[in-house]
This record gives sequence, structure tokens and C-alpha cells, in this order.
Amino acid sequence: MAAHRVVVIGSGFGGLFSTQALRGRGDVELTLIAKTTHHLFQPLLYQVATGILSEGEIAPSTREVLARQDNARVILGTVTEIDLEARTVTSVVLDQTTVTPYDSLVVAAGAGQSWFGNDHFAAHAPGMKSIDDALELRGRIFSAFEWAELATTPEDAAAYLTFVVVGAGPTGVEMAGQIAELSRRTLARDFRSIDPTSARIILLDAAPQVLPAFGEGLGASAQARLEAMGVEVRLGARVVDVDESGLVVESANGTRERIESACKVWAAGVQASPLAAQLAERSGAGLDRAGRIEVLPDLTVPGHPEVFVVGDMISLNQLPGVAQVAIQGGRYAARQIANRLDGRPADGPFTYRDKGSMATISRFSAVASIGRLQFSGFVAWVLWLAVHLVYIIGFKHRVTTLLHWAVSFLGRGRSERTVTHRQLFARAAMEQLGDDFRPTLPLS
Amino acid sequence: MAAHRVVVIGSGFGGLFSTQALRGRGDVELTLIAKTTHHLFQPLLYQVATGILSEGEIAPSTREVLARQDNARVILGTVTEIDLEARTVTSVVLDQTTVTPYDSLVVAAGAGQSWFGNDHFAAHAPGMKSIDDALELRGRIFSAFEWAELATTPEDAAAYLTFVVVGAGPTGVEMAGQIAELSRRTLARDFRSIDPTSARIILLDAAPQVLPAFGEGLGASAQARLEAMGVEVRLGARVVDVDESGLVVESANGTRERIESACKVWAAGVQASPLAAQLAERSGAGLDRAGRIEVLPDLTVPGHPEVFVVGDMISLNQLPGVAQVAIQGGRYAARQIANRLDGRPADGPFTYRDKGSMATISRFSAVASIGRLQFSGFVAWVLWLAVHLVYIIGFKHRVTTLLHWAVSFLGRGRSERTVTHRQLFARAAMEQLGDDFRPTLPLS
Repeated sequence: MAAHRVVVIGSGFGGLFSTQALRGRGDVELTLIAKTTHHLFQPLLYQVATGILSEGEIAPSTREVLARQDNARVILGTVTEIDLEARTVTSVVLDQTTVTPYDSLVVAAGAGQSWFGNDHFAAHAPGMKSIDDALELRGRIFSAFEWAELATTPEDAAAYLTFVVVGAGPTGVEMAGQIAELSRRTLARDFRSIDPTSARIILLDAAPQVLPAFGEGLGASAQARLEAMGVEVRLGARVVDVDESGLVVESANGTRERIESACKVWAAGVQASPLAAQLAERSGAGLDRAGRIEVLPDLTVPGHPEVFVVGDMISLNQLPGVAQVAIQGGRYAARQIANRLDGRPADGPFTYRDKGSMATISRFSAVASIGRLQFSGFVAWVLWLAVHLVYIIGFKHRVTTLLHWAVSFLGRGRSERTVTHRQLFARAAMEQLGDDFRPTLPLS
Repeated sequence: MAAHRVVVIGSGFGGLFSTQALRGRGDVELTLIAKTTHHLFQPLLYQVATGILSEGEIAPSTREVLARQDNARVILGTVTEIDLEARTVTSVVLDQTTVTPYDSLVVAAGAGQSWFGNDHFAAHAPGMKSIDDALELRGRIFSAFEWAELATTPEDAAAYLTFVVVGAGPTGVEMAGQIAELSRRTLARDFRSIDPTSARIILLDAAPQVLPAFGEGLGASAQARLEAMGVEVRLGARVVDVDESGLVVESANGTRERIESACKVWAAGVQASPLAAQLAERSGAGLDRAGRIEVLPDLTVPGHPEVFVVGDMISLNQLPGVAQVAIQGGRYAARQIANRLDGRPADGPFTYRDKGSMATISRFSAVASIGRLQFSGFVAWVLWLAVHLVYIIGFKHRVTTLLHWAVSFLGRGRSERTVTHRQLFARAAMEQLGDDFRPTLPLS
């Protein structure tokens, strides 16, 4: 009998864990198609942006992770089309198109940043979704101090030393905390014309509290800790405009204020991969405001029990956009495929088991919510450390990561603060070219 | 008395070591101007390109290195003009220009890659002079295997799996050796459609031997070891054309051959910073074919005893373009400045003390030439390991570097093989825009 062809789209948590769950099955031929060659450990992206970790530590090669899984192959490509009738996936890499047929499909293409319909904000306040984003932000954050050192007026220096983080979810809180640590500790002695410790860090959110998903108590605790570090927390504040040199914020009472700031970070809002909308349209499923597809309780698309969607792309039971939802969804989908191949009945509907959530605020301080238990401060930070070390992929990355954390948390240093011209300006150049930039394969 | 203003141009070995040699002098006010925010440990650039080390490990922040040197400030900028009469240095960062006056000047702006008048080769065969170069090459090398996996014909796959390194000096030898290790060991199990171990690696040079600076014996030894690893070494071979999909090589006997190859690395030839030509023209000093200025025996420019030039920019006694020449030159220049300030007579002419040279070929194998002693194989490799660990800056980088070497040399892995879209295509986008790409400061 021919092997059962499984195609997995995406190398994030959902894609990787569903692939690994089918390891060892000789009756499966799995193809993982992803637009990057790495698996991205997104929860630590903020540490790449702030110079603690290297790219390699949070973005191991997908091929390397799957090298010993003989039934899996990996191909590079951005999926542009899923043909539900023909059961094929079309992927594009530069100017080459590949069509891959499937018997079962797991779609785990994740979500990108959303600027809530204001895509022109992106150039001035980049998001935090990819290694390229993190490296660009690393460049912007460290360069802001360089520009300040060269500034010719105190006003310019102050605007360069004003950092605004939009969005007070875990990523925003972690970014604001790290920029504070950078300015207060790491860079304190590095400049001669400016005082890095005078940097102003503003954390904005339209919501009435920090870390809404963690509940009021932990939100207040996180806010107090951020404020003790010198972060200005502004809640009920909506961003109405962003440009190169600052942004305009509207308070809950309708008053508007302009903040001069060279370095803005956008950590608010996500938008599911456009594949969710495509699948919804073609299957008649609903779509929510964040572009997520309303899947059936078994994570499949209406009328297509062979097509699973997992992770950030789905709208189901108000699940949060966290790694565990993708991991458990990916494993669930793999188990249903295995059940069918083995002639076992399907499991019941997908149920998410909440293992808790956590966010670091600074070194030695975090908040964690695990079931009914809530932790903050040092205990939460130790929990955070332990959990993240377990989930970092590969022994070698665990050792270097632990060492880099020692450098940054016990010491004042940042091992990975290298900034290059291209990392800082590549996006600007590519955006300026727009459709005129069409790199091709070398042999095209 | 007003402090003596020293300006140092460049954060490479010459600039950094001359700056550090003036540490603790309260009568000196030193400004280091460099076009990157990092010191680059160039001899290990090939390890960033081939996924062994992260950028941070070989490119520590110059500010961090100099944070505790109170008499030194660091500013970011590309020096465009040295006014020998007004004694000022003009530097540019994006659209901002800064003029810095000096009493003494140390010019250590280094050298860039030279394509021997064929600058159009650069787009197809990038050089190896900066972190951006190394990351672009990392992208090209690892991506070549990705393109091969997706190739639709065996000819295309073969061309993607053909790597050509031009230039058989230390950098070229090290790159060829590492690409061989990558294909034979690291990637051996990672692909399903192609066999990475079948990759063809060609090392070309117009010279009649590998590693000419190491003498015939070590050259032959390095060549034998490379060939044992499966590297094709072609000597007396001149590159006459390079394009997107391959290159044309002319043998010593005048016959030409085209080699289909998607990934080419240019490790041949250097060209001194254009500041050398500017200084030569303004001072009447000579200039050699590599654009290096003929300085006086005390490393100063004719008629300007306050202006020192060190490292790769100078033409003096046929000194090689190695780190030690820059380090010793930088220290010598700093000592002459100190002598004058202290009213001591000048030292004699600059004399270079050859501490030897070494090049790795593969894990556990290197060649080293130290005075009259010559080593090859494992002994030379242990020497290489020890010397490089000593020169890596900072304890934290030494520990992670040693760990990354263990991963790659004892194991098969590469910890830092992350490739991103921007890293691979940023240069192409910027070159396509040319003068139309003019990023400005955020507050401009």
C-alpha cells in the first residue's frame, strides 16, 4: 500500500510538534513546507531584539531538528494556495513554484503582526514576529543610543532616548522591561555625551490593565514592578498616528498627545496567516476579526475531515495565541491522522489543557499564572527560567542560552548586541522597491 | 593645560589596540570614530559564514570593550575627509556630518575586498570583510542546499551543489575546508532529494600554490589535506568572468572553462580604505597597487608627524595584511604619542615582530608557521585553538566560542545556521536602489 501523504504547513510550534508526533510511522510520508528554514521559538524573540541571545539559539534549523525522522522531508516555500478539491498545496520560493499533493493536511501557518488597519505604521513601529523583525529592532534600539550620542540639541537627544512600546501583553511587557534594563544597567557606562540611564521608556495599551490575560492581581503586580524600574505605563491609551519621529496617543477621555520618539516597537495585535481566510472562503467556515478560521471541534475544516488547522490561525473556544495551543493542537491533529490509519475511532473534540502562562519583567522578576495559582517576583522568574530551558530545543542551545542569561542577569552584559547596516535598513530598502524587488533563484 | 586630542579612525585591531594603549592617561582625550559599532575579529569571520559562531562572538561592541576607559569616547561614523591643515576629521552617519578636531591622529581604517577592477563580480561572488558579508554568505551557502533540494533537473541540482572559493590564502582555505565539513558532516542527513556529501567544492587561485605566505612545505601539506577532504584545488587559474549561475576560469596555458556554480565566495585581493589614497594625495606620499599609502618608517605621513597610519592601509617593508601588523602598529603609534606628551625621544622606526601565522583547514587540522618552525595537522590545530581563544575578547565570548567549537568539531552540528530573507537579499535590494537609497536619521 502506498504511504499516506501528510503535508504540514509551517515550522512553528504547531507544525513541528505535529510532524514529530508522526515520527516512526513507516506508513506516513510527511512533507513539512515552511517559509523559513528554522523553527522559531517566538517567546524569546524579545531577547534577540535586546541583545541577550543569538538568532541560532531561538531559531534552530528545522532540518536539523528533523534530520533523524526518516518519514519527514522539509522544503522551503511560502504556501500561496491550498486546493481542497485536488488536495494539493502550492508553495513558492522566489520564482519557483512547487505543487505538493496530500492525503492529510495540517495547516499551522501562524499569525503575523497586525497594525489594526494602519499598515503604514509598520515602517515606523516594526512588529516582533520574525528573526528579521528582532534584528531590525535590535538595530533600532541600540542605534537610538548612538544617534542620541551624536545629537546636536538636547531635544533631539531626548527624543532618541524615548522608547515607546505599544501593547502591554507579554511581548510588550518583556520588551519594555528589557529596554529599561539595557538603559539602566548594560549601557550605563558606555556613553560620554548622554546618560543612557535617563532614557524614557513608555508602555502603552488601549486596555485598562497590563497583561490582561493574567488577571487583575498579576497585572497590577507587573505594572508596579515596571514602574519601579522607571517604565511609564499608560493604559486606556490608543495610538492614532505613528511617524518617523514620534507618535500620537489618544487617552480614554479623548485628549491627544504627541510623543517625540525615534524608536517605537509594535507589540499589539495579531492577524492570522491569509491561508485562514482562503480556507474559510473555500470551505464556508467563518472568520473572526483577527482573520482566524472557525474550525470544527476536531480542528478540521467543514466538509474536509482530512484538513486540520492548528495554533494561531484558529478561532475556537477563545483559545489564547500561545505556544501550548499550537503544540497541543499539532499533536491532536497528528493523533487523529494516526487513528484513521490504524482504523481507530477519532478522539473526542480537541480540548486545550492550560499549562499556565508567564511573562518576565526584568531579571529575577516575572509573573506566572498556573491554573488557580499565581506567582510573581523571584519565584515566578525561577519558574520561567526552568520552563524555558526545557523548551529550548537541543542541549547545545540550552547550555549557551543559560550562559548568555548568566551574562545578562548576573552580570550587566549583552553578548549579542551586534548591529549591522543591512540588518537596520534592509526592510526599508525592500519596501522602497516594493514589487520592483523580485529576487530569483541563481539558476533562473 | 588642555588635554591632547587624539582621534583614532577605525575599530579594527589597529584602532582598538592604539586606543587601549592610551588608557589611563588623563592628559589625553581620545575619540574613536568607526563605521560600525563593533570591533570585528576578522580571522574568525569564516566561522560566522559557515554557521559555527554567532555575530556577537566575533563582533563585540566597541563601546562595551572601552566602557571603562574614561579618556576614550566612541562615535559612529564613516570618515570621508581628513583635513591635514585644519587638523580635523569629517565623518558622516546617514545624513548627519560631524567634524572632530585632533592634535594627533591614528588612521586605522583597514582594507576592503578587491575584485581586481571587476566590481561587477561582487554581486555574484561576495567578499568576506564584514559581518554583513559573512551573514550574506551564510545565507548563500546554506540556501544553495535548499535550492538543490527543490531543483527540478539533475543539472540544476549539481550546479547548486557546486561551491567555488576564489583565493587560496587563509580565508579561502578556511572557507573551502568549512564548506567541505558542512556538506560531508553537518548536513549529511538533513536532505531527502539530494545527497549533500556529493557537493563539489573548488578552491581556485592564480598563484602556483595554496597559502603562498606559508611557504612551499605548508602549502603542499594544506593542499593535500584539502584534497583528502574532497576539495578540488586548482592553481594557476585566473577568474575571467563571474555571473549569477557560474564563472569562467582561465588556466595557466590559456584554456578557458566555464563552471556552473550558484554559490561563489571571493576571498582574493584587498584594497585599502580610500582614506589611504586621500592621505597620499594630500601629503605627497606614494600609493601602491592595493591602494596602500607609503608611510615613513615611524608610520607617519610625510610632513605630518602627528598623523599615523597603521594596519592594512600601509605599504611598508612588504608587511602582510594580518592582525598582528595592525596591533603592533597601533601600539607603536600610541607609544609615539605618549613619548611626545611625556617629552621622551621617539622610538626607532617601527619594526614588525612576526609572531607567526596560522590557518585551519578542517577540524583537528591546521598549518602554522612560527619563525623557522612549521607545524601542520593536529599540533598546528591545537596551537590555532589556543591562540584564538586568547585573542577572543571577553571571558563570556571565550566560553560560548569554546562551546560552539565543541558542537562543531567534536559533534557534527552548527549552532548558528539561521538564515533570514533580509540577510540573504538586503544587499541586492540596496544595490538595486543605488543612490536612490538614502536612509536618514529618524529625526531628520
